[in-house]
Amino acid sequence: MLKDYNKYLEYRNGELYLDGVSLKALAEEFGTPLYVYSASYIRDRVRAYRKAFPTALICYAVKANFNPQIIKLVKEEGAGADIVSGGELYASLQAGVDPKKIVYAGVGKTPKEIEYAISSDILMFNVESRMELEVLDQIAERMGKKVRIAIRVNPDVDPKTHPYISTGMKKSKFGVDIKQAKEEYEYARNLKNLEVVGIHCHIGSQILDVSPYIEAVEKIVELYHYLIKSGFDIRYLDIGGGLGIKYKPEQSNPEPSDLAEAISPILKDVKAKLILEPGRSIVGNSGVLITRVEFLKDKGHKHFVIVDAGMNDLIRPAIYDAYHHIVPVEKRDGRYIKTDVVGPICETGDFLALDRELPEVGRGDYLAVLSTGAYGFAMSSHYNVRPRACELLVDEGKYRVIRKREDYTYILSLNS
Amino acid sequence: MLKDYNKYLEYRNGELYLDGVSLKALAEEFGTPLYVYSASYIRDRVRAYRKAFPTALICYAVKANFNPQIIKLVKEEGAGADIVSGGELYASLQAGVDPKKIVYAGVGKTPKEIEYAISSDILMFNVESRMELEVLDQIAERMGKKVRIAIRVNPDVDPKTHPYISTGMKKSKFGVDIKQAKEEYEYARNLKNLEVVGIHCHIGSQILDVSPYIEAVEKIVELYHYLIKSGFDIRYLDIGGGLGIKYKPEQSNPEPSDLAEAISPILKDVKAKLILEPGRSIVGNSGVLITRVEFLKDKGHKHFVIVDAGMNDLIRPAIYDAYHHIVPVEKRDGRYIKTDVVGPICETGDFLALDRELPEVGRGDYLAVLSTGAYGFAMSSHYNVRPRACELLVDEGKYRVIRKREDYTYILSLNS
Ligand SMILES: Cc1ncc(COP(=O)(O)O)c(C=O)c1O
Ligand SMILES: Cc1ncc(COP(=O)(O)O)c(C=O)c1O
Repeated sequence: MLKDYNKYLEYRNGELYLDGVSLKALAEEFGTPLYVYSASYIRDRVRAYRKAFPTALICYAVKANFNPQIIKLVKEEGAGADIVSGGELYASLQAGVDPKKIVYAGVGKTPKEIEYAISSDILMFNVESRMELEVLDQIAERMGKKVRIAIRVNPDVDPKTHPYISTGMKKSKFGVDIKQAKEEYEYARNLKNLEVVGIHCHIGSQILDVSPYIEAVEKIVELYHYLIKSGFDIRYLDIGGGLGIKYKPEQSNPEPSDLAEAISPILKDVKAKLILEPGRSIVGNSGVLITRVEFLKDKGHKHFVIVDAGMNDLIRPAIYDAYHHIVPVEKRDGRYIKTDVVGPICETGDFLALDRELPEVGRGDYLAVLSTGAYGFAMSSHYNVRPRACELLVDEGKYRVIRKREDYTYILSLNS
Repeated sequence: MLKDYNKYLEYRNGELYLDGVSLKALAEEFGTPLYVYSASYIRDRVRAYRKAFPTALICYAVKANFNPQIIKLVKEEGAGADIVSGGELYASLQAGVDPKKIVYAGVGKTPKEIEYAISSDILMFNVESRMELEVLDQIAERMGKKVRIAIRVNPDVDPKTHPYISTGMKKSKFGVDIKQAKEEYEYARNLKNLEVVGIHCHIGSQILDVSPYIEAVEKIVELYHYLIKSGFDIRYLDIGGGLGIKYKPEQSNPEPSDLAEAISPILKDVKAKLILEPGRSIVGNSGVLITRVEFLKDKGHKHFVIVDAGMNDLIRPAIYDAYHHIVPVEKRDGRYIKTDVVGPICETGDFLALDRELPEVGRGDYLAVLSTGAYGFAMSSHYNVRPRACELLVDEGKYRVIRKREDYTYILSLNS
C-alpha cells in the first residue's frame, strides 16, 4: 500500500526506508522535523512525463518545491521551469535551468521582475491581463528587446478540486476569459515589442480525473486553429500543470500517460510544441516529513499525539483541510487508536490529522507524514519563531543535506 | 473612522500618515510590500492594560509579532513576555525582557526548549498535559533545578470566534479539562522538582465580547479557592490573552478597561497576582501593510485590483477568511468600485479582499491594509520564492527599519 504512494518507500525489517535510506537513522542524525525527498522518484516522474509526451517541453512548476537541488535534478532529466516570480527565476537559474526552457506566469509581475526575466531571455511570458500586455510592451521597448508571449486563457472549466486551487474558472483572477481571448490576441499583435508565440492555460491543481483536461484542451485547440487561421504564428501550446496525486489511501496516483491518452487525440492536428507545467505530480509523493512524538494526551473523549512539526512546517491541513497519510517510522504491531495528530503551535488549526486511526505510538517515536514533497517546505514559515526544517535528498541509499536546518539567529538576522 | 482603528492613523492633505510619518514617503523610500507599526499606539495599549490592571503582570504574547524591537518597546512599558517556543524565548531575551517576567505555554515543548527555559530561569511554565509534568520534572531533576509551574486549565467556554483560534473548548488540544484539573494539581504536587505556583487559562483569540471571559474567570477563581483550601500556594492567576480588535468598520476596539470592569468583581478575593497575555490587542491595530497596485483587470462580471502583497505576506484572509480594511494611501475622490484585491501568488486563495467597495485606484497607487500588526509578518512565508516585507517602526514623526527587506540570496542562503 505504501508502494502506491511511492515505490521507493518501504518497510525493511519493520523500519521505514525511502530510496534505500533508513528514515530513523536520518531523523537521529539530523533531528526533526525533517523533509526527505527521493531523487529516484523525482527522476521517474519526469521520465514518465517525457515518455508520455515525447515531443513536449516539460516545465517543472517551481512553486511546488523551490529547492535548487530539486530543480537541478529535474533539469538533469531534461525539464525546464515554470515560474511565477523573480525569486523562482533566480532559483531556476541557480539550478542551471536553460532560460530557453523557462515560462513565466503570474498575475502580479512587478517591473523589476519583468526586466529580470527579459534580460534573462526566457522562453515566454504567460500574460494574464491587457494591462500586463501594455506594461510588458513598454518595458521591452525601453530595453530594446522583443518579448515572446502567450496569453493565459481561462477556459472556464471546473477542475473539481479545492476552490483555492481552482484557477481556470470565470470568476478567477487568472488569465483572460476565453470569449475575450481573440480580442486580446488582436491587441497583442499590434504591440510592436511583443511576439505572440503561444497559448497558455492552467485549470487548477490536484486534479485526479482527466476529464476537465479534455474539456479545457478542446477549447484551447479550437482557439489555436482560429488563431492560426488568423495568421498568428502560434508555436507553443502550454496546457499548465495540475495533475493530482494520491494523498488518501483510497486515491490513486494518476499517470502522465493517462493524461496523454486523454488529450492526444484532441492535439493531433496541432503543430505547436506542447508545454506542460507539472509541479505536484513530480515532487509531491517524492517527499515525507519526519516528525517526533513529543507528548501523548488522553482526554478521555479525545486522544492527542503531539508532534514537533507544526503548521509552520506544513500548512496544507490548516489551509486546505488537506489529508496527509501518516505512518510510523518503526512499524508497530500494537492496537490502533483514534487520535488527532497535532503540532506545537498556539492554534487549534495546527493539526496534521484529525480523528485518525493510527497504530499506538510512544513519546520519542518518529512518524512519517506522506505526500509532502509539494507545497510543504515551500509554504513553511517562522510562525512562533520556529526555525524551519532541514531538507534532505536521498538517492539509491545515499543522502545529502540540500537545505540546512535554520537556527534562531537566521530568523532574526535581518532584524536590527 | 480611521481614528477608531488607530488614533495615530490619519489623512493629512489627502495623504495617509501613521504616527506622524507619510506612508507614501515610506513606500517610496523602502519599496513595497512594507509593514509599518506605530510605536505610540503600542505604548498606549500597554499603558491602557497597566492602568486597567494596575497590580497585574502584562506578558505580551510574542506570537502576535516577534520583532525584537516591538518586544523591546513593550518591555520598556513594563511588560513581560508570553512565549510558546524556544525561538520566542530567544527573541524576548534579545529584546531585554526580564526572564522573571516570562511565562511559557505550548503543547509541544521539546526537551531542548525546556532546558533552555529552565536555565534562563523564567517565571513559570504553563503546563499542558500530565506527560509534560513528568518530563518537566525529569529534566529539572537532571539539571538540579526546581521549576515553577502553572497548569493550563481548559474552562470549556465558547469564545465565539474562528474555530482555529478557539483554544479553551473541551475538544481542544490545549490544557487539561477543568474537571480533571484537581487531579492534575495533586499529581504535580508530588513531583519534587516542580513548584506549583499558578493557574493558567486562555480561551481563544479575537474575542470582542467580554462575556466569555466572565464565564472562564468564574470557573478559574472557583478552582483557585479550592486549591488554596487544599494547601496549594497559588501565587499567579494567568488568564491568557485573546481580547479582540476592530477589523471591520462596524466593529469597535474593546478596551482593557472593559475587560477589567467585567472581571474585577470576580477577582476581589483572589490574593494571587493576575497575569494577562495580550498579543493582538497590543499590536494588531498598530500596524498597516502598504502594498502597490500592479495591475487592474476588468473582466466585466468581475473587477480585480492586483497588488504586490500576497498570501505569503499576509495569510489571514486565506486561512481564517479574515477581513482587513483597505484604504488608499492617497485619498481619492473618484467613484467607488466593487473589486477583489488580490496578490501575485499562483492561488485563488491569494486575496486580501473579496467584493470590496473601494475608491477607484490606478496602477502604481499605494494601498494600506489595516489591522496587520498582529499575525501578519509573524505568519509570513517564502511561498513562490518571495522575499518577505521590510518592517518599519514609526514614532512621533520619526521612523526606522526594524527588519530589512529580504532578498533572493537570504531565502536560499542555507541551501546547498
Ligand atoms: C500556472 C501554473 N502552472 C502550474 C502549476 C502547478 O500546478 P501543480 O503543482 O498542481 O502541477 C500552477 C499551480 O498553481 C500554476 O498556477
Ligand atoms: C496561551 C496564549 N496566550 C496568549 C495568546 C495571545 O492571544 P491574542 O493575540 O489573541 O491576545 C495566545 C494566542 O494564541 C495563546 O495561545
